[in-house]
Amino acid sequence: MSKIYTLGELAGFINGKVHGNSDFAISGVAPFESATVKDICLAKSKEYLNKIPLCPSKAFIVPEVPDFEGINFIVHPNPYAAFARIVSLFHPLEKKEAMIHANANIGSSFSYGKNVYVGACCVIGDNVVLGDDVYIYPNTTIGDNVVIGNNSRIYPGVVIYPETEIGSRVIIHSGTVIGCDGFGFAPDAGSWIKINHLGRVIINDDCEIGASNTIDRGTFGNTVIGKCVKTDNQVHIAHNVEIGDNTILVAQSGVAGSTKIGRNCIIAGKAGISGHLKIGDFVIVGPMTGVTGNIKDGNVVSGIPEMPHKLWLKVSNILGRLPDLRKKVFLIEKRLESIEKKKNAE
Amino acid sequence: MSKIYTLGELAGFINGKVHGNSDFAISGVAPFESATVKDICLAKSKEYLNKIPLCPSKAFIVPEVPDFEGINFIVHPNPYAAFARIVSLFHPLEKKEAMIHANANIGSSFSYGKNVYVGACCVIGDNVVLGDDVYIYPNTTIGDNVVIGNNSRIYPGVVIYPETEIGSRVIIHSGTVIGCDGFGFAPDAGSWIKINHLGRVIINDDCEIGASNTIDRGTFGNTVIGKCVKTDNQVHIAHNVEIGDNTILVAQSGVAGSTKIGRNCIIAGKAGISGHLKIGDFVIVGPMTGVTGNIKDGNVVSGIPEMPHKLWLKVSNILGRLPDLRKKVFLIEKRLESIEKKKNAE
Amino acid sequence: MSKIYTLGELAGFINGKVHGNSDFAISGVAPFESATVKDICLAKSKEYLNKIPLCPSKAFIVPEVPDFEGINFIVHPNPYAAFARIVSLFHPLEKKEAMIHANANIGSSFSYGKNVYVGACCVIGDNVVLGDDVYIYPNTTIGDNVVIGNNSRIYPGVVIYPETEIGSRVIIHSGTVIGCDGFGFAPDAGSWIKINHLGRVIINDDCEIGASNTIDRGTFGNTVIGKCVKTDNQVHIAHNVEIGDNTILVAQSGVAGSTKIGRNCIIAGKAGISGHLKIGDFVIVGPMTGVTGNIKDGNVVSGIPEMPHKLWLKVSNILGRLPDLRKKVFLIEKRLESIEKKKNAE
Repeated sequence: MSKIYTLGELAGFINGKVHGNSDFAISGVAPFESATVKDICLAKSKEYLNKIPLCPSKAFIVPEVPDFEGINFIVHPNPYAAFARIVSLFHPLEKKEAMIHANANIGSSFSYGKNVYVGACCVIGDNVVLGDDVYIYPNTTIGDNVVIGNNSRIYPGVVIYPETEIGSRVIIHSGTVIGCDGFGFAPDAGSWIKINHLGRVIINDDCEIGASNTIDRGTFGNTVIGKCVKTDNQVHIAHNVEIGDNTILVAQSGVAGSTKIGRNCIIAGKAGISGHLKIGDFVIVGPMTGVTGNIKDGNVVSGIPEMPHKLWLKVSNILGRLPDLRKKVFLIEKRLESIEKKKNAE
Repeated sequence: MSKIYTLGELAGFINGKVHGNSDFAISGVAPFESATVKDICLAKSKEYLNKIPLCPSKAFIVPEVPDFEGINFIVHPNPYAAFARIVSLFHPLEKKEAMIHANANIGSSFSYGKNVYVGACCVIGDNVVLGDDVYIYPNTTIGDNVVIGNNSRIYPGVVIYPETEIGSRVIIHSGTVIGCDGFGFAPDAGSWIKINHLGRVIINDDCEIGASNTIDRGTFGNTVIGKCVKTDNQVHIAHNVEIGDNTILVAQSGVAGSTKIGRNCIIAGKAGISGHLKIGDFVIVGPMTGVTGNIKDGNVVSGIPEMPHKLWLKVSNILGRLPDLRKKVFLIEKRLESIEKKKNAE
Repeated sequence: MSKIYTLGELAGFINGKVHGNSDFAISGVAPFESATVKDICLAKSKEYLNKIPLCPSKAFIVPEVPDFEGINFIVHPNPYAAFARIVSLFHPLEKKEAMIHANANIGSSFSYGKNVYVGACCVIGDNVVLGDDVYIYPNTTIGDNVVIGNNSRIYPGVVIYPETEIGSRVIIHSGTVIGCDGFGFAPDAGSWIKINHLGRVIINDDCEIGASNTIDRGTFGNTVIGKCVKTDNQVHIAHNVEIGDNTILVAQSGVAGSTKIGRNCIIAGKAGISGHLKIGDFVIVGPMTGVTGNIKDGNVVSGIPEMPHKLWLKVSNILGRLPDLRKKVFLIEKRLESIEKKKNAE
């Protein structure tokens, strides 16, 4: 059922070099544990290169040619990325036939491109604009004046509030809510007055937003997600946050209001970043870290509150020894007292 | 397109005093960064008062009259709250025309007031009661016997389980689930037996519940959210929790079963509160705090586990110095040994 | 309205022993606080046994017979589990009449058993198989090739991605997303290439998945949830995770990719477990714990990073005393200097 490619065709597709039989036929892609003779595998590191003889597969993507007889290789400087491309060649994302489902509810002035799919029980507001090849899966709600670029797909059950702007090739997973009001209330006589939110959410090209994310609209200005930002599940992004290109946010992390995060950062799982901060480019924030201050380009931080990651490794190592350290201090104190007593007695 | 008010009209609306030209025409509201000459701005503190000459706007809400020529002011003792009210005057929440959408699914004995909107693909159970001016946005599911008070709005994709009671002027954002079963299982021979949940969720007047919250129904009694409680996104509230009036829960915080939180508390982002605790009134729980014991009225706590916030500031300051402290203790020990050796040698 | 049972009938149902009047009529079940003379109550511990005379109820489930006149007992070795069963006898989960709602959208080759309920605005893909007595509540989306076993119920607004396999007697609460893509991207020239996810999610018999969970499909292999696993709300389970039978995950906990958790574990609230770890059987991970290494069978851990729970209790006790400890060390240093000076002066 699945297509067959020669090793040469695959190498051409990923711009790699064949070492071995260019005509070797490949019908699938698999990890070492489940590969068959027809599959191509990824051996991105020494660890995997050494296991090649144990694997039934006879074709591998490798960073350099190892010394094995009768095995075929595609050599690629970034074998992991090359492998990801070959996975998507054999297993592309679902292709839907163009259709506006009869049970979708479409508002006025709906504008959409070629090959658009809108599933059953979608509810689409007024003045919504969808580009070419956009898929809106079932039970999704899209508010008025939302714009979505080409080749984007919104999975079932997503809610996009009015005025949100979404780029091209964006993927949004189920349960995610984009454009809800930020958490802004003015205190008034022991109670709270809502600050209506006039800003929007802008999600740029090539982003993938995980399941059950919440991304708030800006109070006046916008919440802006840069190009090729990837978020895992249950990520929270507050009002007026800006996230730079290629930054990734791992599961259950959260960013408070008005914080700017640079590009190519990694915000690890369950990390929390306070509001109104500036996080530089190429910053790494470790898992469960609580960031309370600005962070400069390239820094790696961990801990609650955050500190340089290398320091955190030392600190976290000491934490479990605190009871011993405390005992030692008390013992030292006693020995000191004993010396002082003797001194005084002299 | 937007309405124009005189400064005098705005002052009347918020019960403030004009200083300057009462007839000055205002057509909008904006922050300093994007204000034009037609906008009114908020200058709530010295910092902003000093920037007034740099702002194109000629009308400001201020706590006291600063010394500027040719600028118009509304003086108000709580300028932030006054500003929030003026924002909502220029930009009120969306007004829907009364309609039960033809593609909404309504159960038996549906009772509803004036100006009610129920969107497409809503599914409403039996014996549901909606007050006047209630908006149920599309794709929302409301279980049997749910009651919702006047002027409340439930945004798209919310799920409200049966028997839930929601007050007036309540806002519930998308993706939130209210009234699901609490996490209760009796251990039995290495496995678990479900404890069916007979209680309900009661949400009182003027609450705003953020996106993707989960609020569990009580086991026997009820989970009760007080008046004017505001929750941010991804907040979890377990079975039989009670939350006092005006308390706010910031994003990704969670409260375990049967805990009672008093009124006017602030539970900061990612904080977790254990079950069966009593948190007093006017308590502040810092971000990422893990609360394991009762907290008295007015206390401010931080840390895992919680401690007085001022102590936590000291502790968190020492954490990064632990490696140095440990070295110092080892050095002291050596010096002590050297003294002891000499003593013994004497 | 509710059914009446004799104490003897109830004892038979839970396999307990009557002590008192077997014919005593019971029409309900309640906690001590709200019980009436017609209710049966649970007195599982000394604390509750002592309160029996203060309770209007005249029938109790107890671990052993206390010494009270005129009160009726069912004695059971596991009174809590027995009570849970009696709760479900008086208050069973909702029973729906068999129906495929006219406003449900059903794909091709739909196969389903007896007494199946599919609510309004459900969207069900192609080749979906539902067992007997399956309830799919409204606004739920089920992808192609999903299989769901007998007696399972999927509450409103759930999204189940294609190919997911769900066992019998499984409950899935609202807002949960099962089978979305895992968080896998290959770095490529400063940007990211998506790794398409070919694996599935398998949820075994008797699981209950809380509200707003996210469970990712495997990259190649599967994400597997064992039998009788119970998850609270807002739990995140990443791609290729395996969770053993009877393990419970409390609210807002998260498990990163490829980690294997054994059976009968308790992962407490807001705990995070890193990827590619092996957590043994009968492990307890405390609230807000950050697990970074493998954990052996039966271990109890807490802290960030994790340590033995008993050690953590000591450590957490010392944390608040760190400022005092630090002062003491500085004082000791001074005293030591003073001794050293004197020594040198001698």
